[in-house]
Amino acid sequence: MEREQKELFERMFHPKSIAIVGISRIYTGLGGQFFLRNLQRAGFPGTIYLVNPTAGEISGMKAYPSISALPQAVDLAFICVPAQFVSQVLEECHGKGVRNIHILSSGFKELGTPEGIQLEEEIRRVSIQNGLKVIGPNCMGPYVPQSRLMPWGQIPGTAGSLAFLSQSGTLTQRISEHGHFTGMGISKAVSFGNAAVLDSPDYLEYLAEDDDTRVIGLYLESVRDGRRFLEVARRVNQKKPLVLWKGGETSSGAGAVASHTGTMAGEDRVWESGLKQAGISRVRSLEEVVGTAMAFLYLPPPKGRRLFILGGGGGNSVYYADICMRVGLQVPSLTGETREQISAMVPSVGSFARNPVDAWRAFHDPDYMKQILEVVFQDPGLDMIILDRLIPRMTYATPEKKDTSQAAIDYLRENRPHKPLVAVVDGAGEDPYLAAEAAQLRQRYCRAGIPAYPSLPLAAQALARVAAYYQRN
Amino acid sequence: MEREQKELFERMFHPKSIAIVGISRIYTGLGGQFFLRNLQRAGFPGTIYLVNPTAGEISGMKAYPSISALPQAVDLAFICVPAQFVSQVLEECHGKGVRNIHILSSGFKELGTPEGIQLEEEIRRVSIQNGLKVIGPNCMGPYVPQSRLMPWGQIPGTAGSLAFLSQSGTLTQRISEHGHFTGMGISKAVSFGNAAVLDSPDYLEYLAEDDDTRVIGLYLESVRDGRRFLEVARRVNQKKPLVLWKGGETSSGAGAVASHTGTMAGEDRVWESGLKQAGISRVRSLEEVVGTAMAFLYLPPPKGRRLFILGGGGGNSVYYADICMRVGLQVPSLTGETREQISAMVPSVGSFARNPVDAWRAFHDPDYMKQILEVVFQDPGLDMIILDRLIPRMTYATPEKKDTSQAAIDYLRENRPHKPLVAVVDGAGEDPYLAAEAAQLRQRYCRAGIPAYPSLPLAAQALARVAAYYQRN
Repeated sequence: MEREQKELFERMFHPKSIAIVGISRIYTGLGGQFFLRNLQRAGFPGTIYLVNPTAGEISGMKAYPSISALPQAVDLAFICVPAQFVSQVLEECHGKGVRNIHILSSGFKELGTPEGIQLEEEIRRVSIQNGLKVIGPNCMGPYVPQSRLMPWGQIPGTAGSLAFLSQSGTLTQRISEHGHFTGMGISKAVSFGNAAVLDSPDYLEYLAEDDDTRVIGLYLESVRDGRRFLEVARRVNQKKPLVLWKGGETSSGAGAVASHTGTMAGEDRVWESGLKQAGISRVRSLEEVVGTAMAFLYLPPPKGRRLFILGGGGGNSVYYADICMRVGLQVPSLTGETREQISAMVPSVGSFARNPVDAWRAFHDPDYMKQILEVVFQDPGLDMIILDRLIPRMTYATPEKKDTSQAAIDYLRENRPHKPLVAVVDGAGEDPYLAAEAAQLRQRYCRAGIPAYPSLPLAAQALARVAAYYQRN
Repeated sequence: MEREQKELFERMFHPKSIAIVGISRIYTGLGGQFFLRNLQRAGFPGTIYLVNPTAGEISGMKAYPSISALPQAVDLAFICVPAQFVSQVLEECHGKGVRNIHILSSGFKELGTPEGIQLEEEIRRVSIQNGLKVIGPNCMGPYVPQSRLMPWGQIPGTAGSLAFLSQSGTLTQRISEHGHFTGMGISKAVSFGNAAVLDSPDYLEYLAEDDDTRVIGLYLESVRDGRRFLEVARRVNQKKPLVLWKGGETSSGAGAVASHTGTMAGEDRVWESGLKQAGISRVRSLEEVVGTAMAFLYLPPPKGRRLFILGGGGGNSVYYADICMRVGLQVPSLTGETREQISAMVPSVGSFARNPVDAWRAFHDPDYMKQILEVVFQDPGLDMIILDRLIPRMTYATPEKKDTSQAAIDYLRENRPHKPLVAVVDGAGEDPYLAAEAAQLRQRYCRAGIPAYPSLPLAAQALARVAAYYQRN
């Protein structure tokens, strides 16, 4: 990426000054006042200018009549004016020397009307002609906790290593939530809607060189130039793993894409083969984006797909094995010394050399868990580990045990470099109290650098994707 | 089912007297003392006898030296003695006139040893010869909240309409949790392990005639007689929907089955075609068993698979449509009067006649939700409805709205006979507080008779299965 382009992006994501163009006198929900309120709440440290043609003052702050009237060329302008005025505002931005712009306004191609399509083409023409970097239209824009650039962040924000590029504002907001509560944190997130000017490859080029970003999640509905996207994505993916969710796979979904971002979802089989050739990890939900990204961030590269599962309950063992096989992992029987040593510790393993190992005691006795794991760490025939963890509570098999989670977490934090290792803490059952307890326990694991998942399928999928990535790359 | 057989089952599930055979002097975790403690905690109103050859007294209660010494033939005996003594205890039961027996003990076929296999065959021989009804071995046994027969229920139990048959004790416990917190309740649950004597078709025959049971969930790893199972399952399914989860689909899973219940999982393609021919709804997780059962319990039969989705957020609309298509539902564009009327209420629907309808206002304005739904209720081209519901909280689009959930729930409870209608209340994001809030809100919906799911895929799958059932039956 050229130096000038990179510097523009730096100013976009770490602005010292912002203008909110088209802020209304009163609060109207999603719009300029909403951005202002959230930036203030987030403690944004830069200067905020308001632009309103007639108000003079809004919320006790001076309002400038136009962009031209601003005392400086801001690093980033939010545009909230009605669709038909947007291209005129872009011209003004150019005149003032404002290069980075986010357009919240909708009413463009996503309407499917000739007028909407024409307005969007006009935006694109003006922007390209004048070298403007434009996010949107029809989107929530940038989100960077490190800069307190959290214009729609009513959720606590944490700075971290995961970037997220998305054509859905809702999903961008939700990933900021996951980023905070898992402790992974967000480096940069961008909701970029219709992608009239900047498209995913542009952001990817920047993120590839961004020191704060280590893994990149994407929710895409379309790309303007498929060939360029795949070329850039392939290149970036070798350096920083991409985890991509494509919306609009089915005909109904593609119809919804047209009316959401006014773009063409494209044939899914074309996407499938392109992504496969480019070696990109493809997922199918936000939880999978988050879960797979977390595995990339926290785990050492697995040497293969042979999984060891330590849990409790024979039924669990059965369907855990089914799920892992189905996502492409292997759950081999134990052999040799591992078999002997684990059979001595878990008698039921004996005759079958079973894996998953069904050992309730490992839930509440960290020393016992440790003894089993140390055997597994030594076995070159086992590449990765899933630990099933119960929420400390009364269960029929461990009625009155004290919470030993911290000792387990401490041991795992120390020893996680040995082999890729994740935890499952399942709070299903619809008990509100346990749902909260399970989320809290997962948080403790994640914040100690041990990926923890609410369900085994999510854990297995994350491991399978990470294993596939390192086999390819 | 013959009258005598039925009466035996009635006594098994509603016992007036229970013997705990092989209870130890001290508490040792899973075992006789554990059953005693839980029956007392549950307020079991019948008589409990303890049997221990030498103790004389346990926990302040008289302990009888043998079953023969009991003052009466109990309705149900729990057997907790070591494997090698079980068949002898069965002989004693026969001598005393005890017909219903649950065997907790393990150490049988699941070990894969010649001795284990022989001990299990001996149990089977003695039981069949003497007409004993035996649950197990190697399992948690029966669970009937209505009778306070909750020998392992440390979770609050609710009596209700869902029966559950399972070869996993862990899953049986977990379904009791779902049953309580969703308010569906459990009629009878049986963890029956190795199924040496009574097998799933036996329980099914009884449940078919059980007035308390309206829907039957199953977790099976094997059946002894596949032909009989399919014949019985087909017949019962016409009367009361079955929702079946088969463990051991893959080779790893089948290996785990052998060491869990000592049974043969069978070829999965044989199961698949058999279940399909018998018209049984097949699922692949406990959450799907629960979610599908709830749809069967609460919804009027859908007339087809054409789904209307009311939610918020354009990205959601896209992947919601993808998910629904993939499970076999249709998400048709709106047409005719529906299109006109909904376009008037939700301007963005306009040119695309989009479905899912993206209307944030419906989250917090029950009157608006109602206006949209009343149009949908009238449209013969739309068969079923998914409502996306937010947890009342601050979000970027509805920052400071009051909680209007109760008005929405009241309206939906009144109007749910019009069309099958379910809600999605997603608490993902790993915020412990919101996880609990979401579970609570789902609870309020479910207890009002409106199935509520933690994710759209679960809701869509449940609707797809219910629609398929009524198309077949």
